[in-house]
Amino acid sequence: MALILKSMLNLSDIDSNFRALAEPTRRAIVERLSRGPASVSDLARPFDITLAAVVQHLQVLEESGLIRSEKVGRVRTCRIEAGGIDVLAKWIAERRALMERRLDRLGEILAEQDQFTAMPQHKRKERPK
Amino acid sequence: MALILKSMLNLSDIDSNFRALAEPTRRAIVERLSRGPASVSDLARPFDITLAAVVQHLQVLEESGLIRSEKVGRVRTCRIEAGGIDVLAKWIAERRALMERRLDRLGEILAEQDQFTAMPQHKRKERPK
Repeated sequence: MALILKSMLNLSDIDSNFRALAEPTRRAIVERLSRGPASVSDLARPFDITLAAVVQHLQVLEESGLIRSEKVGRVRTCRIEAGGIDVLAKWIAERRALMERRLDRLGEILAEQDQFTAMPQHKRKERPK
Repeated sequence: MALILKSMLNLSDIDSNFRALAEPTRRAIVERLSRGPASVSDLARPFDITLAAVVQHLQVLEESGLIRSEKVGRVRTCRIEAGGIDVLAKWIAERRALMERRLDRLGEILAEQDQFTAMPQHKRKERPK
């Protein structure tokens, strides 16, 4: 319960990070930048959309903290911001850890049941595999 | 390039998964379900929103493949769908792996530069820490 409330406060970053990555062009940009920095025009090249649209996607990514950019002369260079993706990685890892812990517990319960049903006195029903 | 194109095709699941998790109530529901199954009314209890709104959030989560639900009698029970979150975990892990590989390469380049600048003949500029 406390966890649920905690997760609902102070986490607007996560909201915007998830939202930013819910769009294939923005994900492709993050994929490209995770291999190294690139200029806006380099980033725009593979996409069949206007440069203005790419710039808009970059703004969404930058506002969510997933990338940052810096203008030197006439060239704006974009870089991945590791912290942004780490927030998401942490959230997902926490969920998976809880799920796995739960599956471990279920496994233990099933193992106990197996020991129980292995007793010769016990009348067993056939169980699905 | 092939990677970018690949990432833009066949990945509508990722889109809807990211979009589904860009909302704090839906994330809180996934957090709750990662600790075990729950009925719709149990899930609704901690939130100050209508049951109809919760049901709508559950539909978004179910359509994106992050949860599944089953109605027995009058009770609909929701469960986490591990596969859904795994798709996101995989995407994020791939990005981080590429970023780390890049940082390793940068580290090697810096180490080589250090060896170079350590040579007594070389006239060094003071470098920022």
